Amino acid sequence: MAEKVALIIGAGDALGGAIASRFAREGFTAAVVRRQADKLAPLVASIEADGGKAVPFGVDARKEEAVVPMIEQIERDIGPVEVMVFNIGANVWFPIVETTARVYFKVWEMACFSGFLTGREAARHMLGRKRGTIIFTGATASLRGKSQFAAFAGAKHALRALAQSMARELGPEGIHVAHTIIDGAIDTAFIRDTFPDLYKTRETDGILNPQHIADAYWSLHTQPRDAWTHELDLRPWSENW
Amino acid sequence: MAEKVALIIGAGDALGGAIASRFAREGFTAAVVRRQADKLAPLVASIEADGGKAVPFGVDARKEEAVVPMIEQIERDIGPVEVMVFNIGANVWFPIVETTARVYFKVWEMACFSGFLTGREAARHMLGRKRGTIIFTGATASLRGKSQFAAFAGAKHALRALAQSMARELGPEGIHVAHTIIDGAIDTAFIRDTFPDLYKTRETDGILNPQHIADAYWSLHTQPRDAWTHELDLRPWSENW
Amino acid sequence: MAEKVALIIGAGDALGGAIASRFAREGFTAAVVRRQADKLAPLVASIEADGGKAVPFGVDARKEEAVVPMIEQIERDIGPVEVMVFNIGANVWFPIVETTARVYFKVWEMACFSGFLTGREAARHMLGRKRGTIIFTGATASLRGKSQFAAFAGAKHALRALAQSMARELGPEGIHVAHTIIDGAIDTAFIRDTFPDLYKTRETDGILNPQHIADAYWSLHTQPRDAWTHELDLRPWSENW
Amino acid sequence: MAEKVALIIGAGDALGGAIASRFAREGFTAAVVRRQADKLAPLVASIEADGGKAVPFGVDARKEEAVVPMIEQIERDIGPVEVMVFNIGANVWFPIVETTARVYFKVWEMACFSGFLTGREAARHMLGRKRGTIIFTGATASLRGKSQFAAFAGAKHALRALAQSMARELGPEGIHVAHTIIDGAIDTAFIRDTFPDLYKTRETDGILNPQHIADAYWSLHTQPRDAWTHELDLRPWSENW
Repeated sequence: MAEKVALIIGAGDALGGAIASRFAREGFTAAVVRRQADKLAPLVASIEADGGKAVPFGVDARKEEAVVPMIEQIERDIGPVEVMVFNIGANVWFPIVETTARVYFKVWEMACFSGFLTGREAARHMLGRKRGTIIFTGATASLRGKSQFAAFAGAKHALRALAQSMARELGPEGIHVAHTIIDGAIDTAFIRDTFPDLYKTRETDGILNPQHIADAYWSLHTQPRDAWTHELDLRPWSENW
Repeated sequence: MAEKVALIIGAGDALGGAIASRFAREGFTAAVVRRQADKLAPLVASIEADGGKAVPFGVDARKEEAVVPMIEQIERDIGPVEVMVFNIGANVWFPIVETTARVYFKVWEMACFSGFLTGREAARHMLGRKRGTIIFTGATASLRGKSQFAAFAGAKHALRALAQSMARELGPEGIHVAHTIIDGAIDTAFIRDTFPDLYKTRETDGILNPQHIADAYWSLHTQPRDAWTHELDLRPWSENW
Repeated sequence: MAEKVALIIGAGDALGGAIASRFAREGFTAAVVRRQADKLAPLVASIEADGGKAVPFGVDARKEEAVVPMIEQIERDIGPVEVMVFNIGANVWFPIVETTARVYFKVWEMACFSGFLTGREAARHMLGRKRGTIIFTGATASLRGKSQFAAFAGAKHALRALAQSMARELGPEGIHVAHTIIDGAIDTAFIRDTFPDLYKTRETDGILNPQHIADAYWSLHTQPRDAWTHELDLRPWSENW
Repeated sequence: MAEKVALIIGAGDALGGAIASRFAREGFTAAVVRRQADKLAPLVASIEADGGKAVPFGVDARKEEAVVPMIEQIERDIGPVEVMVFNIGANVWFPIVETTARVYFKVWEMACFSGFLTGREAARHMLGRKRGTIIFTGATASLRGKSQFAAFAGAKHALRALAQSMARELGPEGIHVAHTIIDGAIDTAFIRDTFPDLYKTRETDGILNPQHIADAYWSLHTQPRDAWTHELDLRPWSENW
């Protein structure tokens, strides 16, 4: 007990893992969450090999009945959630008339509703301590709609509205709520396999290194409270934006 | 048959009714939709008393299995949907930790998901004709999150992303998609009963007259296609914004 | 005397002329302003041939010592300035290191400072009547900076800040201040000669017809004060934005 | 020679001094600029007392004939300008009809035109090295116009357009251009003397500590080029925004 916890929702991809590792290196116990617990084993092993602590949770963040007890258990058995990072995306695109109701709902449920559930529950515990950091990961689509991106842009816009509403409500309660705009491709297996030409720009820093994004999240967490950032954009130098 | 149809989703309050009446006065058959068909009787009677045509639909716009056949039926039995106005709001506010999952979901389902369903189905029929107007009603919360407004601002941000994505995709197909920002109180029973002091400013035009908003919607519909407006804000002269 | 005046600053190109003609057709005396009075002769003749009234002013709108007495003279000798439209642009682009101080200053002086001078002086007279409309013409560059557009985007951003500040201050005084975003090419000799391929899209309404923009300005002026628009975007249906 | 230079334009107030000191502590030679050279003596003494290096320049940044040779001299005699921070403000407010042409011009000249001149000249030298950081200090007024703030908001909007245009042009050239939004009162003598009640919130971190802002500027400079931030907002936790 008495561990400081960094709760990482969506620790499945390169970015969530890098953020968890970064906070673990700073002495936090990383509570790492994704749907399938067994897929978390390599991340936990990697954090432990680095001398850090990590606890895996195989939890579907869209399920209130799973999210609420998970955070209660963390608070009771591991330590206070000092940091919560929401990092679930769902980047799909379809012409509007080919966007099924199921897709539109699922994208919102994954990329926004789980952010609401986990953000709200983290805030609930932080409010008692008047302290804590909550970071939501956004994207270019958080700022602009685009042809074929109604579902993804909708979820991301709604997540941004959540972050901004929470920041305005919880800032004066001592809780730092931030939102990032990741405006470019991240160095992931998905980008490597789907956009090989884009991936080649990795050699000249043309795609975002997850560890550098994790550093930026750490910076947000450590800002003194007289100078908090709410929205942080991050993009490669060579990006055409 | 061969009637031009203006389909008004959310014809329950003052604004939806005014918009339906406005398009009916211009010769459109107003297909007016709200959950309870019987509540539409006064609006239909009023439009008919004015010499216009209106057809009521008691349909829950959140239900794909109801929306799809309703629009097919209108297209088949009444005439082409030339105009679709989505006008369902859900203005509630709660501190973030008192916002239930049910509320958060319901607000999105009403104020955004039904807009997606009805907008998509209207677009599907308009695409064949390369013609049509779709207008989504937004609010100040479409642009900014605010303390206690995570649910409403989220739904409205997502609706705006839908409107913008559809505009960019469907504009070059000949379909005019617009989004309004209603930035002030509308002259409704809700405002009269809930904010009586604010309602008194009605005498000096301090709240929005639904008929004037309806005029603005008519203007959007009649814009020539070389000069289309995507986003239109409307507020009283005396508003502090 | 006792004529209602529409004062059009920058009546030199297609758009300023169309706006002047539009207000003249509605019974306003168009006070049309550009640097060289003789170049106004065709516009004045055209308005008069239509049965309207126009008075030309060869005035440099960047010169306070010319602007102040011009508006005083109009108010005294012609009638109250009910409408003022500021319509001077200066669309140039250079790499940042090739942007001379002279260019940077001139672009601001033309596209922003003259707007301040004429807007302020129009407001001064309107304030006594608690009535009037002031419209500033903006562009895509009013919203976003762009490579090589530091000078133009700077002037347009500043003009937008002027419009928004004046709207917030003068709205509650009964003066309607609006700003337009013209997001596309206008049907002008400049576009015809400089971008001939773009100009060909005129046949399919791919560029903005000045008369349609003028109609939109007229709509802004006639909005009832409970439902004023501050910012109006206008773009061709086929625009990629 | 061969010193890395951090050039601080507007090193007169608390913030410029803190930024200069921060970069000096990191091994940069701080080239500190304000109109009156003698007023720079305390800052230079303080940096030197800390073991750093500082060179004062009594230069009016609005004068191209002074700015160009100053930067050439720094590059020739001291070392390459690796960092340029533009930090001149001019926060005044007047009703629009009491805003003189002189005030409107001066505010723009100080808060925007000097930023253009110094930013352009810094960029000119950085372009040869494909490296460097340029940071412009913005404010809430960079984003929104406000009653009585036409002059200040105009200058700040234009400065933001400059920053954004330069970022988009110079990013792919290896130069990191950033813009900050300082959204709150800074701990300065001006705030202490003008808004004493606000100043009291200093004890609970209610106003921004210049050293914390300087830390944020340092963070911007040290970001790896695959994850650059363009716009960074900073505000106290308790701010009502």
